[in-house]
Amino acid sequence: MTPLRVTVWGEHRHECSDEDVPRIYPDGMHATIAEGVRAHLGDGAAVRTATLDEPEHGLTDEVLAGTDVLTWWGHAAHDEVGDEIVERVHRHVLSGMGLIVLHSGHFSKIFKRLMGTTCSLRWRKDGDRELVWTVNPSHPIAAGVPHPIALGEQEMYGEFFDIPAPDELVFVSSYTGGEVFRSGATFRRGHGKIFYFGPGDQAYPVYHHDDVRRVIANAVSWARPAAADRVLPEARRTDPVDTDR
Amino acid sequence: MTPLRVTVWGEHRHECSDEDVPRIYPDGMHATIAEGVRAHLGDGAAVRTATLDEPEHGLTDEVLAGTDVLTWWGHAAHDEVGDEIVERVHRHVLSGMGLIVLHSGHFSKIFKRLMGTTCSLRWRKDGDRELVWTVNPSHPIAAGVPHPIALGEQEMYGEFFDIPAPDELVFVSSYTGGEVFRSGATFRRGHGKIFYFGPGDQAYPVYHHDDVRRVIANAVSWARPAAADRVLPEARRTDPVDTDR
Amino acid sequence: MTPLRVTVWGEHRHECSDEDVPRIYPDGMHATIAEGVRAHLGDGAAVRTATLDEPEHGLTDEVLAGTDVLTWWGHAAHDEVGDEIVERVHRHVLSGMGLIVLHSGHFSKIFKRLMGTTCSLRWRKDGDRELVWTVNPSHPIAAGVPHPIALGEQEMYGEFFDIPAPDELVFVSSYTGGEVFRSGATFRRGHGKIFYFGPGDQAYPVYHHDDVRRVIANAVSWARPAAADRVLPEARRTDPVDTDR
Amino acid sequence: MTPLRVTVWGEHRHECSDEDVPRIYPDGMHATIAEGVRAHLGDGAAVRTATLDEPEHGLTDEVLAGTDVLTWWGHAAHDEVGDEIVERVHRHVLSGMGLIVLHSGHFSKIFKRLMGTTCSLRWRKDGDRELVWTVNPSHPIAAGVPHPIALGEQEMYGEFFDIPAPDELVFVSSYTGGEVFRSGATFRRGHGKIFYFGPGDQAYPVYHHDDVRRVIANAVSWARPAAADRVLPEARRTDPVDTDR
Repeated sequence: MTPLRVTVWGEHRHECSDEDVPRIYPDGMHATIAEGVRAHLGDGAAVRTATLDEPEHGLTDEVLAGTDVLTWWGHAAHDEVGDEIVERVHRHVLSGMGLIVLHSGHFSKIFKRLMGTTCSLRWRKDGDRELVWTVNPSHPIAAGVPHPIALGEQEMYGEFFDIPAPDELVFVSSYTGGEVFRSGATFRRGHGKIFYFGPGDQAYPVYHHDDVRRVIANAVSWARPAAADRVLPEARRTDPVDTDR
Repeated sequence: MTPLRVTVWGEHRHECSDEDVPRIYPDGMHATIAEGVRAHLGDGAAVRTATLDEPEHGLTDEVLAGTDVLTWWGHAAHDEVGDEIVERVHRHVLSGMGLIVLHSGHFSKIFKRLMGTTCSLRWRKDGDRELVWTVNPSHPIAAGVPHPIALGEQEMYGEFFDIPAPDELVFVSSYTGGEVFRSGATFRRGHGKIFYFGPGDQAYPVYHHDDVRRVIANAVSWARPAAADRVLPEARRTDPVDTDR
Repeated sequence: MTPLRVTVWGEHRHECSDEDVPRIYPDGMHATIAEGVRAHLGDGAAVRTATLDEPEHGLTDEVLAGTDVLTWWGHAAHDEVGDEIVERVHRHVLSGMGLIVLHSGHFSKIFKRLMGTTCSLRWRKDGDRELVWTVNPSHPIAAGVPHPIALGEQEMYGEFFDIPAPDELVFVSSYTGGEVFRSGATFRRGHGKIFYFGPGDQAYPVYHHDDVRRVIANAVSWARPAAADRVLPEARRTDPVDTDR
Repeated sequence: MTPLRVTVWGEHRHECSDEDVPRIYPDGMHATIAEGVRAHLGDGAAVRTATLDEPEHGLTDEVLAGTDVLTWWGHAAHDEVGDEIVERVHRHVLSGMGLIVLHSGHFSKIFKRLMGTTCSLRWRKDGDRELVWTVNPSHPIAAGVPHPIALGEQEMYGEFFDIPAPDELVFVSSYTGGEVFRSGATFRRGHGKIFYFGPGDQAYPVYHHDDVRRVIANAVSWARPAAADRVLPEARRTDPVDTDR
């Protein structure tokens, strides 16, 4: 089987400006995420990375046309992502490209564009323990992960999370402070498949956690396009179906 | 508007045999639940009760035919509910009667019959605090309740809860022990509407809690039949639609 | 009960420029739609209308703040609706205002904004008969309508309709040409409820059809806000839940 | 990859008793269905068949334990399927085995047991043309099929189809007579995945149609278990999650 073409997109700012983040992610968070996908999918995936400060954020039309599944992590610089690039990614998703949105990517322009809602939530950065529970055990994204996944320290993300009701709810998390969060959710939009996954913050080594990596790899596999061609749904006038001709 | 005809069904065994339960529910849990519905719906509802040890468990065909919404609490004696009565309730639900299943009713014959799954879950009776979070704020069942509802002591019910994916997920709970639970969920089956609500155990005074009562009353209103007639869906041969005649 | 405050918005262009439309809708399509809501909800609703060519399209912040449910019909002039007004309506929907989108409103800016997809579909204006079948008989929007609703002549709208999977699918239509269409669909976004309904074209007298009017009135009732206050979901930092204080 | 172990179950009565059916399906409908799965999955699947009149209907616990996905076609003899076998299949599905239910299998004991509803529908055997439209183009079950699939002659199955709202609606059909039908629908129950597919009747050569065969093969692939072990969800008491130990 042809390897799945995966592009891991990272904002790559905290790793350059914050004091502690480079210790956790010396090559950037995107490098660690990419490594996790490679570790789990092996020859089944050809993984590259792209970051905000590259020309066109590393997301030219050519790159996207050659990407089966895009993963997205951003936080401090959502506003610096160009509207034209957002429209381009949007068009590719509706045309069939898979999209995995990670953690603070909930507030990215592309996720808000696709959801149509504010995507707001409660939060607290206070080292809560997060427990990620599977509520959809037959879903391929949950294959092979413990119940629950325990993350010793994480940023709290809590309800109400202003997203459309997911097509499939896969994970629900709890936090030390008592909050809950729909932390694993699928959405189909146009010809594309989208997965949002809550865990992951620049201040904690979450993307080194093997169960988190497995979920991301599972999600990448799940989000592969159903068709080889990328086609944007378009309005068109059609004649009555004539099966007698 | 004609009052909604509500029947509150209770197993009514713990109140007779356990030591502490009668102190919490001296007239039976069903009496307290009925009182809560009356308190919130007022003249909008005509509420009666029925219990396991009445003839036909108080659920004759006549009673069910005169019931718009039935609420169900059972625990210790699920097996004593007659199969014929279960089939009767099932038929009435599919024909349009609303059904509210409470707490340990998850293991009742009627709920398992309607869900088609084991309806099993994790549990622990250890006085966990339960927090009930709204994940569907525009749903009428969540109208007027705090976010979260805090229940000081409750039995823990945790995932994986083996139910079909709810049509609408309204509440998700967390517990002191770190578990989560889809504690408010709607299901449509046939012409009937069903709501499962997690809170409520014979050992804790949960049905005296006004927010819990409000949720149950909201659910009763929501589950009212859409049509006046009760009709069981049936297979039938039909001719092509002829709109020219 | 306080009457539901309904604003019926109409583009009101075809009625001024086309030859035949004024014969079908002499006072404008919005007037006929408003009349249908009044006919079915009576004293339960206070209905007003607004149109594109009014200042701010008749949708000032004050008007929207005083609107529980907004209905939307547009077709030829979607592009003339100001982006600022679209953002305003979007904000009110996410804050709790109900929205009923009719027929060619599928391509309105506000519907595309809320759905996040292209909202494209197949179409043919050739006088197909449309049959509207109920697939969710316990839903209040389907209460009291025949199965199917038969519309002698209608524009064909067919699949693939590029919308998110509806929260609830209420109606599915067929056409003479063999196409099918998810013609009645609910969506919850933020605190607001949305219903899309397929029937209705300026060239056919569909909004004079009593079953179509009943569906729109049912939808208006269903979309009423769950809470009295209008609140936009916003991100906020929160402390751990402390129920001991 | 280990081949997927598929068991194609057929009632195999019409082929023995009816006049015309043996001409269409000389080796039995199950043989033709099995052939279609083999044609599309090749070495990826190891396909065997089982029929009603074999001991235990060919569905011993050993056979089911060695089956990843079971397909089910029955019609005239639903009542002859032993209740014990139905409970056994039910247990295997909830424990992870995939199940594909075909056409008149909507009235099988196992499908009704899993759905919890009457599974009734409208029908007419009058050679209607059926058009099967994809409403979920990114779903793997719809991969590679035309839009619509045209079936020259088929039994009409129409709404209201009394099933729970599907987790995912993949196909909707129309018929010459004007009816519509949710003809491709997924359901997750316990650890198992279920797909219902409408096309297929003993009187028409539908299972020789390559697009129908492709859908069934796609569905078989989709329904594969997520985990290697087969585990029935069971209630159990658990201690609080202790991640400090």
